[in-house]
Formats: sequence, structure tokens, C-alpha cells
Amino acid sequence: MSKDSIEKFQTQREELNQLVMAYAGQGTKRFYSLDSQAYRAGALPAKVKELLGLVASFVLRCDDCIKYHIIRCFEEDVSDQELEEALFIGLMVGGTITIPHQRRAMQAWDELKQRKSRTSLG
Amino acid sequence: MSKDSIEKFQTQREELNQLVMAYAGQGTKRFYSLDSQAYRAGALPAKVKELLGLVASFVLRCDDCIKYHIIRCFEEDVSDQELEEALFIGLMVGGTITIPHQRRAMQAWDELKQRKSRTSLG
Amino acid sequence: MSKDSIEKFQTQREELNQLVMAYAGQGTKRFYSLDSQAYRAGALPAKVKELLGLVASFVLRCDDCIKYHIIRCFEEDVSDQELEEALFIGLMVGGTITIPHQRRAMQAWDELKQRKSRTSLG
Amino acid sequence: MSKDSIEKFQTQREELNQLVMAYAGQGTKRFYSLDSQAYRAGALPAKVKELLGLVASFVLRCDDCIKYHIIRCFEEDVSDQELEEALFIGLMVGGTITIPHQRRAMQAWDELKQRKSRTSLG
Amino acid sequence: MSKDSIEKFQTQREELNQLVMAYAGQGTKRFYSLDSQAYRAGALPAKVKELLGLVASFVLRCDDCIKYHIIRCFEEDVSDQELEEALFIGLMVGGTITIPHQRRAMQAWDELKQRKSRTSLG
Amino acid sequence: MSKDSIEKFQTQREELNQLVMAYAGQGTKRFYSLDSQAYRAGALPAKVKELLGLVASFVLRCDDCIKYHIIRCFEEDVSDQELEEALFIGLMVGGTITIPHQRRAMQAWDELKQRKSRTSLG
Repeated sequence: MSKDSIEKFQTQREELNQLVMAYAGQGTKRFYSLDSQAYRAGALPAKVKELLGLVASFVLRCDDCIKYHIIRCFEEDVSDQELEEALFIGLMVGGTITIPHQRRAMQAWDELKQRKSRTSLG
Repeated sequence: MSKDSIEKFQTQREELNQLVMAYAGQGTKRFYSLDSQAYRAGALPAKVKELLGLVASFVLRCDDCIKYHIIRCFEEDVSDQELEEALFIGLMVGGTITIPHQRRAMQAWDELKQRKSRTSLG
Repeated sequence: MSKDSIEKFQTQREELNQLVMAYAGQGTKRFYSLDSQAYRAGALPAKVKELLGLVASFVLRCDDCIKYHIIRCFEEDVSDQELEEALFIGLMVGGTITIPHQRRAMQAWDELKQRKSRTSLG
Repeated sequence: MSKDSIEKFQTQREELNQLVMAYAGQGTKRFYSLDSQAYRAGALPAKVKELLGLVASFVLRCDDCIKYHIIRCFEEDVSDQELEEALFIGLMVGGTITIPHQRRAMQAWDELKQRKSRTSLG
Repeated sequence: MSKDSIEKFQTQREELNQLVMAYAGQGTKRFYSLDSQAYRAGALPAKVKELLGLVASFVLRCDDCIKYHIIRCFEEDVSDQELEEALFIGLMVGGTITIPHQRRAMQAWDELKQRKSRTSLG
Repeated sequence: MSKDSIEKFQTQREELNQLVMAYAGQGTKRFYSLDSQAYRAGALPAKVKELLGLVASFVLRCDDCIKYHIIRCFEEDVSDQELEEALFIGLMVGGTITIPHQRRAMQAWDELKQRKSRTSLG
């Protein structure tokens, strides 16, 4: 993973979302809008909601979804240990079949941390 | 679901766990012990961990696992709205295929609340 | 399956939907409403949409969802052979792990046919 | 589970298979016939093939499929320890979400052993 | 995705199918042959069968399978709106975890349309 | 797949495992250690255990896990026909949705055989 893999991911995601929207009917558009609504702070804080989205994506083993929520967890100031504890639950529930996704999740997490550390020092 | 369905569930679960343990090798025993460890309060509080276990079980669509975590969430004083927001994330991530599990989850939740209300009034 | 298993299924489903709605937030309510919208006739006729919902439920192996779409397919005048061809695709895509669901799907289908035949003769 | 739960399972399975076959087209019939072929002794002995079928059914979490292969493993003289080791692999790969299925698998195994022991003593 | 990504996909698929067949036993060969049979026009037209295969692949989240059926749907003259309605059902049933696959499905669909439009104009 | 794709896979896997371990808590470490334990020869020989791990990974459709077990099966002297019979069971249980994984499994297997044949001749 090159140092800008996060940005590449975000750019491609954005471009393809626009393509999906170009073909989308009203139902699909409403579905996407409901999706954003689900993660807004309510009785549960946004941070907990992102951890819920992360663990759900983790046990269903979707790399793109995991990466998206890893980035969001980072933005919500999830700590290393909080992330580790959440993914340990995912690992227990989902089994060793999730391990390749755990590797890629930690790779993205590590990249986010290194990028931030470069910026702080710069 | 009769008013004692929660107790029946817990009794059967306990009996079958004993049967599993009667046949279990060292590996299986360690695995079960690791499972308990995963939900102990750490950087994340026990309540958040139970919500994570619930949503993971929900999107993987395992009724017994969902019921177990519904009971644990109730014990950890999760509120109606917190539960609803967590399951809404599960519903969005997992799709309409999770709806029958949502029905049974809410049925167990409702039973727990009615049981508590009877006890308080009695 | 007794001869009124379809009715029992529909009654329970209705009761639990009301329970879900009693706890539901705005997001959950909109999600359920989107779900109905997805199966309305459009460029694709309602019958094809129900077959799509059936096969999706079949390969994801959700008995309640399969039963719901089996009933809807019956109402949309899907023929025995159309059903068989659709489920054969589901069987090929999803593998032998779907066979127990195929057994229960055909049991529900057979019950619907016998019920109709009794009514016509009565 | 009453002492004749295995027989009830086998009778219902047989009845529903006949119903499926009453509606089945040529493709479905060939698929079912291929399924039997897959478990015949070849380069791998029948016992190993049944263990493979069991673990595949276990991680995909299909109770009926698990029960069928548990019975077949018993008929192929799989030992308690061989079964435990195979299911431990399933448990590790599939995670705690498989635990309710492990409980029911061991319940069926235990019933098979007790039935045999009664017969031997009788 | 470069403009010849569809061709690259088809070439690689063909090469690897030949490799699978070089190792395949009789059972595997029959299974592949049954698979082709499932999508032949019968009581349901080929177009509906391809939509069923597409939605089944979509909710099971297999990119290669989705791409294959997207190409077949295009060949069977599925319209933009028919595709959108079928995938909306997949999106509802399968949830947001299918979204990354929807992005790649629409990317392949868009490429097929642009390729055809270039050919018509050329 | 270039001729050294197996080595590249093993190197990346090792690097990312180290990254996971750098963040891992005690629970995650114990889980990884239990995983190695599950495949050690016991009542079942290591070869059978690797075939069980392979088929479990195959029906759950995880390419990295399949590749890992394909390599281990090769090291345990699984024959072409034993592999084919095991994967045929996986294909039957898991359905056509596993076919893209079968293609990549056989590609890795073929690479392992060609590499060995080059070494023997060299």
C-alpha cells in the first residue's frame, strides 16, 4: 500500500458513487440517503456508531466497507486500544476467515496514523 | 413466545453448553474462554461491547446469538433508543434479509421489559 | 405443516411487524417503506420482481423471507414450472446448503396449491 | 430432543425430498444425483468426505445439513475425538457464530451414541 | 477500469476454466454443464434468468459472478431501468454491504454501453 | 499470476501478520495461537485437517484463506485427485458462487506443481 492509498480509495469511491447516482432511481437514492442518516449521532455517539458499522462490515468481510469505517473511526478519535477491542470481538464472532480482512484493516489504520504523524511533524 | 421464553432459552443453552464441554478438547475449551474475555470492560465499556456483539450477530443472522446479546444489552442498561439505533445500523448494513431476526429480537426485548415491569410492580 | 400454516405465518408476521414499529425510529420506518416500494411493478413486472426477491432470499437462506415471496409469487400467478426454473438457478448458485430451504419452499408452495384447489372445489 | 428425534428428522427429510422431486425438472434431479456422487469413496475415503461435508455445513451454519452429516459420520465410525477435532477447525474458521450449531451437533451426536448403547445392551 | 476490462475479464475467465477442466473429475464437469443448462430459456425467458443469476450473485457479493451476469444481461437487451430495478431489489435484500459491488456492477455496465456506442458510431 | 506469486503471497502475509501483532492485545494473540493448534496432527492426520480447512475456506469464499490451505495441502502431499474430490464437495455444498475461487485455487495449485517440477529438473 503506497502512502496515498487512502486518498486513492476515497477518490475512486467518490467517482463510482457518481456513476451509481447517474443510473439510480428514486429508491436507490433514498436508500443511500438513509445510510448516511444511520451513522449520525443520536442516543449513541457517532464514534460508537462507526465502531458498530466497522464490526458489522468486518464479520461480513467487505474490504471496502471496512476501509471506509476504519477512516471514519480514525476521524472520530477512536484509540488504538478501542479499535483492537472492537476488532477482537469481530474476530471471535466471525472466526479466522476474517483474518485477511483484519490484516488489511490494520494496514489502513497504520497508514492513517503515519500520515497524521508526518503532518504533525511537518 | 410464552412469558418464560427467556428462562427456557437460558436453561437449554446452559444444558447444551455442558454437553459441548463433555466432549470438548483443550482447544475448544480455550476458545470458549477467549469468547468470555472479549466482552469484558476494557478501553470500551461492557455496554458498547455487547452492542458490538449484538450487531455482529444480527448481520450474520443467528437468532440464538442475537437473543443472548439482547439479554446482555438489557442487563447493561441499554435504552430502547440505543437499541433501536444499533439495530438500524444492522438493518442498513445487512438488508431486509435481517428483518425476521429484527422481529424476534424486538420480541425478546419486549419480553424482558414486561418481565421487569411485572417484578417492579409486584 | 398443518393446513393453516400459511395463515399462522401471516398472522405472526403481522403481529411482530407491529411490535417492531412500536419501537422503530424514523430511519427504520423509512427502510420498511422503501422495501415495499422495491417490489412495485415498473420497467419489470411485479411477477419478475417477486421471483428476484425469492431467489435472493433463497441463496441467502432465510426461511421466513422465502415463505413470504413464495406466497407473493403464488398471488402473482407464477406457474409451477416458472417457480422450479427460478429455484433451480438458486440451487445452482447457492449449492446443496440451500436444499433444506428448497424442501420448505416447496412445502409452502404445495400447501398454497392445495388450499386453492379446496376453495375452487368447495 | 426426544430420543427419536433422529428418526423424525430422517422421516421428514424423506417426505419432503419426495415433494421436491414431484415438482423437480431434469436439472434439479441431476443436481441431487451429483450430490450423492460427491460423497462416494474415491481417492479420499467416505469417512473423510463426510467430515468435509460436515465442516462445510458447519461453517455455513445449516442445522439440517449438519445433522445429516453427523448421522453419516456416525455410520462411518468417526470417533468422538475425530469429530471434536473436525468441529474445532469449524469453530476456529467460522467463529462464535457457529456455537449454537455446535450445541445442536453435539446433541445429535450424543443421541446417536445413546441409541446405539441401548441397542447393544438390549 | 481500462476500456478493454471486459475483454480481459473474459479472456482470463476462459483460460482459468481450461485449467479447472484439466484437473476436473466427472462430477465437476457435470456440475459445470448443469450450470449452463440453468440459464437456457424455458418457462422463463433467458433475460429473466440472467436477472435472477445477477441478483443471486449480487446478494452473495461475488464480483466475478456479477460481472459475468452483467455482460449476459447486456447481451439479452436488459434496459438501464430494468437493471436498476433488479439491483435495487438486491440492494434492499442484501443491504449496504452490497454497495461496493453495485459500484463495480455499474462500472462494467457503463463500459459495455460506451463500447457499444463507439462501435455504432465507428 | 507470475511464477513467484506464491512467494509474494507468503511475504505479504508475514509482513501484515507482524503489523497485526504490533497492535494485538492478549486476546487476539491467544486466538492466533489457537488457530495454529487446530491444524496439528491428532486423532485426524494433518493432511485431513488441511483439507478440512481448505473446504471450510472454500465454501466461505476467502481467497487468501484458500491459497494458504492450498499451499499447506501441497506440503502435506495431497494428490491431484484428493484435492479435486475435496473441492468437488466444496463446489456442491457452496454452489456456482464458489467457481471464481475454484479457478484461483487451481491456478495456485498448478503454480505449486510447476515450481516443484522446475526444481526437480534443475
